[in-house]
Amino acid sequence: MSSNLIDGKEISTSIKNNLKLEIDEIKNNFSRSPHLVVVLVGSNPASLSYVKAKEKACKLVGINCHVERLEETVSEENLITYIEKLNQDDQVDGMIVQLPLPKNLDKEKIIQKISPYKDVDGLNNENLGLLASGDPRFVPATPLGVQRMINEIGIKTEGLKIVIIGRSKLVGIPLALLLSSKSDQGNSTVTICHSKSKDIKSNTLDSDIIIVATGFPHTLTKDMVRKNSVVIDVGVNRIEDNSKKNGFRLIGDSDFHEIKEIASKITPVPGGVGPMTIAMLLENVTKAFHININKRL
Amino acid sequence: MSSNLIDGKEISTSIKNNLKLEIDEIKNNFSRSPHLVVVLVGSNPASLSYVKAKEKACKLVGINCHVERLEETVSEENLITYIEKLNQDDQVDGMIVQLPLPKNLDKEKIIQKISPYKDVDGLNNENLGLLASGDPRFVPATPLGVQRMINEIGIKTEGLKIVIIGRSKLVGIPLALLLSSKSDQGNSTVTICHSKSKDIKSNTLDSDIIIVATGFPHTLTKDMVRKNSVVIDVGVNRIEDNSKKNGFRLIGDSDFHEIKEIASKITPVPGGVGPMTIAMLLENVTKAFHININKRL
Repeated sequence: MSSNLIDGKEISTSIKNNLKLEIDEIKNNFSRSPHLVVVLVGSNPASLSYVKAKEKACKLVGINCHVERLEETVSEENLITYIEKLNQDDQVDGMIVQLPLPKNLDKEKIIQKISPYKDVDGLNNENLGLLASGDPRFVPATPLGVQRMINEIGIKTEGLKIVIIGRSKLVGIPLALLLSSKSDQGNSTVTICHSKSKDIKSNTLDSDIIIVATGFPHTLTKDMVRKNSVVIDVGVNRIEDNSKKNGFRLIGDSDFHEIKEIASKITPVPGGVGPMTIAMLLENVTKAFHININKRL
Repeated sequence: MSSNLIDGKEISTSIKNNLKLEIDEIKNNFSRSPHLVVVLVGSNPASLSYVKAKEKACKLVGINCHVERLEETVSEENLITYIEKLNQDDQVDGMIVQLPLPKNLDKEKIIQKISPYKDVDGLNNENLGLLASGDPRFVPATPLGVQRMINEIGIKTEGLKIVIIGRSKLVGIPLALLLSSKSDQGNSTVTICHSKSKDIKSNTLDSDIIIVATGFPHTLTKDMVRKNSVVIDVGVNRIEDNSKKNGFRLIGDSDFHEIKEIASKITPVPGGVGPMTIAMLLENVTKAFHININKRL
């Protein structure tokens, strides 16, 4: 890879290797692996492929991952009953309800039924509140992965100016909370920009790190980046590309090729934030295991 | 008052007058007033005076406020049992546990026992999480009061640059979430500064609104404020003053007298954010009443 690319694959591989060692030890001490249940409703092709990737990553580090497939037509009541059964099951450490859910199901209501102690996606309001109060338990894997990546490439965030473009509940807001929090990997001066911001460029030109997470290609253009800043691109957008076998390629939210000539470091898409997300999910499941064990001690 | 002062007393009086009308109607329709219980443990003089102010304000708008005084020596178990009794009591709409609590009590554990549907101080993690997810139920009264005040003086926050100095769970962080959120009274570009920020001045000089909430006098000095910006001072600090009967006076976190010559608008201390906080608490109690009633419909 070119010298200024941040290699999310390599960083995440090293994290996963360490996790594997930790999980080997868990198996020795507790005679079982951390146990994740992924609830998959219906057969959305993208969901199927995400779930497969999670299964594969779990297997690699030794997490026991069970995928429970429910019919597209499952009732809200039955789905909630199933989630509550998992909440009660001492042998289940972590749980994910794969999104999106079929439209007749109330996503928010269902997600909030997951025990906050097993909510490895960090979507429960209690967990989001703990994050906002500076005492996080489970943080959504993508923002956690971005923070970890910044840390792993040796950047000390304390006092740095970080601009986040995007204010989603899943990425932008948790990232702002993490990076501004009183902690070794936080303590930065965070600015949150979004679709209603008037002059994003004046903010990004004045920042040490730019994180872009809008879900729109070309959100961050080269004129918005000052020399030597660090660019983290969270976006994953499919665009048509007839030169590819499958007819598309993935690009981020930033103009990667132009910006990589200016930025001191930049994440590629794919191969940047994506692999970090999966690694952080695995860490969350391992954390859930420890929480589950300690609850019963 | 000087023309560029933001008169929190006047704004809050108008809010309370409207609230009184709303509560008169509630009394007509439901044959009872919204009901707040304030739990006061021990006899900390500052707490006694805060609780008295809350009682008085409740009375003014027609909220039924009951202060339950518990002995300094109350056990954690008994306090929690009492809170759970209030959680179950259909006739209680809102509840406050006055802080600080005696040191032998686990404040965080106790606060989290308050039902998130009765938590009018907005301290429950679920409520903080709802705020972070852009769907607030109860928001702490001080940040809510700041947002409302900005709105009441006719400022449209959309697209404005707002710098918040201070990242507390009670003020700075909820304010950042409120003001950056996708809403009519939000949609601004928020920067969160704090003790580890390197160059707060460069941020404040570049902003439309500066909100200072650090709890330290002289945090915001006149060289940090550009002409025509708006300054909201959340601080309340006691400093010695022998010319006063009680030996002290209150000042904010900003150098008020010098900054008021530069700022287009500024809040005085006292008489700025303080009165807004109480008004927002009263609104939260009234909201809790509606939530309580609707739950049973």
